[in-house]
Amino acid sequence: MQQHHQLLTITTNGRGCVNITRHLREAVRASGLQDGVVNLLVQHTSCSLMIQENADPDVLRDVEAFLARVVPDGDPSYLHCNEGDDDMAAHIRMALTQVSLAIPFSGGRLALGGWQGVFLYEHRYAPHSRRVAVHILGE
Amino acid sequence: MQQHHQLLTITTNGRGCVNITRHLREAVRASGLQDGVVNLLVQHTSCSLMIQENADPDVLRDVEAFLARVVPDGDPSYLHCNEGDDDMAAHIRMALTQVSLAIPFSGGRLALGGWQGVFLYEHRYAPHSRRVAVHILGE
Amino acid sequence: MQQHHQLLTITTNGRGCVNITRHLREAVRASGLQDGVVNLLVQHTSCSLMIQENADPDVLRDVEAFLARVVPDGDPSYLHCNEGDDDMAAHIRMALTQVSLAIPFSGGRLALGGWQGVFLYEHRYAPHSRRVAVHILGE
Repeated sequence: MQQHHQLLTITTNGRGCVNITRHLREAVRASGLQDGVVNLLVQHTSCSLMIQENADPDVLRDVEAFLARVVPDGDPSYLHCNEGDDDMAAHIRMALTQVSLAIPFSGGRLALGGWQGVFLYEHRYAPHSRRVAVHILGE
Repeated sequence: MQQHHQLLTITTNGRGCVNITRHLREAVRASGLQDGVVNLLVQHTSCSLMIQENADPDVLRDVEAFLARVVPDGDPSYLHCNEGDDDMAAHIRMALTQVSLAIPFSGGRLALGGWQGVFLYEHRYAPHSRRVAVHILGE
Repeated sequence: MQQHHQLLTITTNGRGCVNITRHLREAVRASGLQDGVVNLLVQHTSCSLMIQENADPDVLRDVEAFLARVVPDGDPSYLHCNEGDDDMAAHIRMALTQVSLAIPFSGGRLALGGWQGVFLYEHRYAPHSRRVAVHILGE
């Protein structure tokens, strides 16, 4: 059994999803391991991880529209408001979605379903550079 | 340290929860391992995993009523709408709940609390056959 | 590769967050392992785990105000209502946040971002004693 740490750096274009599945496949390939589990942890508090449909981009737009409606930007009741209208909403969006994911792999392939993509979900308006800690354990 | 991959197939009766705790216990028993961690990943984007109270079924009904109210089926604003009223709502419900879980086990027993059950949460109206990737690592 | 099980007991002061990051650092130190992954599982169904900003306590207050608004206590439509107004709301809050987290560590240090803290989120009004199963795997 071996393990490998990697740090992915993902550039976002502001609020919305970036498909990082390809980076995870490359990380598994680079590890040389065939069977095991990949643990991901996003190292921020205003973006998150989401597994979601990878086919129709309207799914991602509808998830975004839902969160924008349920978690209002710039809500006047927010106490934490001096980093912009999107900041506290971003923290709440992160609480409602995922910060860590575990994805098994077998025969060198991630055990994702055929319609699943792994996304980094940027919740801030501005583009950011985001880090995801990747831990690969296996043999 | 050893690892075992297993693929659970769970038949659902349409929207609602199926308790899969027993299947996880059987998977740990079948692995022959005594101490380690079980990683679960649901391989779909319209159902999810949830740890919830295993005693009073009203808890599951109230969680369902909450999600049905907050995540409307057939919302006219959805762009992704040609797979039925429940489809986009199912994707959003999945984003708000879990797709992967890690459960340690020790002495051959899952480290769940006494009131905790592990559920596959079907978010579509129709019955489905759902796959959960199970990865057991330990010794 | 080695593994260690630990059971954290966290005392809460009623609804709100308790920062448990320090306990996780101590658990990793006590394990003597330098590189690996920590898996956490909260063993209850009315509290949860959350990674959130560790700097401005207003962030935690705003998350709490959001959940209090979206998940009403004592909603008259709840069927599961004989354990108090906060009980069913607590189960729903748990479904929307996390019960398990995986945090890699390297060089003896948790791979958390600089602004990230790990919190036990108590959703009941009354103080409780809560258990978190900690599984540390590494070398």
